[in-house]
Amino acid sequence: MVICVIGLGLLGGSLALGVKAKHQDIKILGVDANEANAQKAIELGIADQVLALEEAVPQADLVVLATPVSVIAQQILPVLDLLPADAALIDLGSTKELICRTVEIHPKRGQFVASHPIAGTEYSGPEAAFVSLLQNKTMIICEKEKSNPKTLQLVEQLCLDLEMNLRYMSATDHDLHLAYVSHLSHISSFALGITVLDKEKDEENIFDMAGSGFSSTVRLAKSSPSMWAPIFTQNRQNVSEALGSYIEQLQNFKTIIDSEDEEKGKELMLRANEIRRILG
Amino acid sequence: MVICVIGLGLLGGSLALGVKAKHQDIKILGVDANEANAQKAIELGIADQVLALEEAVPQADLVVLATPVSVIAQQILPVLDLLPADAALIDLGSTKELICRTVEIHPKRGQFVASHPIAGTEYSGPEAAFVSLLQNKTMIICEKEKSNPKTLQLVEQLCLDLEMNLRYMSATDHDLHLAYVSHLSHISSFALGITVLDKEKDEENIFDMAGSGFSSTVRLAKSSPSMWAPIFTQNRQNVSEALGSYIEQLQNFKTIIDSEDEEKGKELMLRANEIRRILG
Repeated sequence: MVICVIGLGLLGGSLALGVKAKHQDIKILGVDANEANAQKAIELGIADQVLALEEAVPQADLVVLATPVSVIAQQILPVLDLLPADAALIDLGSTKELICRTVEIHPKRGQFVASHPIAGTEYSGPEAAFVSLLQNKTMIICEKEKSNPKTLQLVEQLCLDLEMNLRYMSATDHDLHLAYVSHLSHISSFALGITVLDKEKDEENIFDMAGSGFSSTVRLAKSSPSMWAPIFTQNRQNVSEALGSYIEQLQNFKTIIDSEDEEKGKELMLRANEIRRILG
Repeated sequence: MVICVIGLGLLGGSLALGVKAKHQDIKILGVDANEANAQKAIELGIADQVLALEEAVPQADLVVLATPVSVIAQQILPVLDLLPADAALIDLGSTKELICRTVEIHPKRGQFVASHPIAGTEYSGPEAAFVSLLQNKTMIICEKEKSNPKTLQLVEQLCLDLEMNLRYMSATDHDLHLAYVSHLSHISSFALGITVLDKEKDEENIFDMAGSGFSSTVRLAKSSPSMWAPIFTQNRQNVSEALGSYIEQLQNFKTIIDSEDEEKGKELMLRANEIRRILG
């Protein structure tokens, strides 16, 4: 089986490593616009060969689009055009509505499975990839009814091989939920990082006085701007609504603190504590 | 040596366990308003004996105030009154200005060292305490010039025994810095938890779709309301300023996302990325 991975970064690279660990006979053709990343991916054993997109796709049984979501939106139609009749295509993008809309009327729509693995770290590039990134993580598949049963089955089997859990939903639901449980956290971290860096000109102070609480809250501020900017754009309505609610909650806290209303403050924090029930 | 620990929770308990691991001949007298916590502390080997504050303090060589900051502010004068002539007193509160102002003109001010260990977890109570919590953490000592040299030396030695790093600053600087690098992170997490819980009525969705990013950003939302409410009150000017700046940054992001200005978004995120230099 030949898998063509387009975008040899954290997700694409980890998927390739995971699949290769499971099936020795799989050949990975890598495609990456960045020459250095492509070279690195060969060195790290992520890809067996690096080719141009136009050469790689026609040879593949499965194509994985693992580029930033803006690039996925641009590449998906040309890739579908080049896709062999029996091959399957998946993407790993963090937004699903625009991508699904883009392929909607393509004659090969059935060969595509819209996917989003709930996995990642704050690092990017092939060096960040590791074999177990996807293990025990959730793969969300959107609009499964629009994929051919055979194609869907192949992709589901791939996920099970990687020891992933499957969940299905509409692209609309996906983008709404993800705005709250993922995209918003990233913005809250980016904004926290900037607020603290702006105030604390002496970085030694941050280093010495920030405990593990700050490190964990600000961790996502290390994330890749070129990956995240297009996610926020593609999901801007949901993200803007989530961000609006978040700002409202923070204003609530500010009013409570300014008025020294500890009882109301405790009530709010007790509500926030309920997250324990879910995250343990 | 007899150490009296008032407040047998995460910090007081961990300090007791750390000291006992280092010096077998130390006796810990525990004081806790909560009977069940006091009992638990005996079971867990945190305290050797539990007494009323009025009984314990007069027997101690060192008294550690490890209650919520509102309680520290109430207890510190009565405790100083009861403190034996050669004994030392420290507090472990996350705010320092009000506490330092409260003791300022007490005749035994020199026997007090205002301290804040930059250590903690999102859990509380004696069960949350563990022997290595303070190890390799920073102890901030405020207004050291107001402590007797002998008292200061005793407290510094205790910190070194616990393998802590020492930093010195004014109470004013402490409260300002902590508002940014600690208190703000807690509010950002509490507010994030509420925003997501309000939207996602089906908690299964949060569980399945939230990756490790959300978990890490929202971790502090599990923190104790009764510990944090008085911290925000005592440090309300700095916290309110920090929160105001944070809300401004989030508004910035919202405007950028609403207007699909990816270039400006990337610029902001690149600035946030600089947190890598400090936190690695």
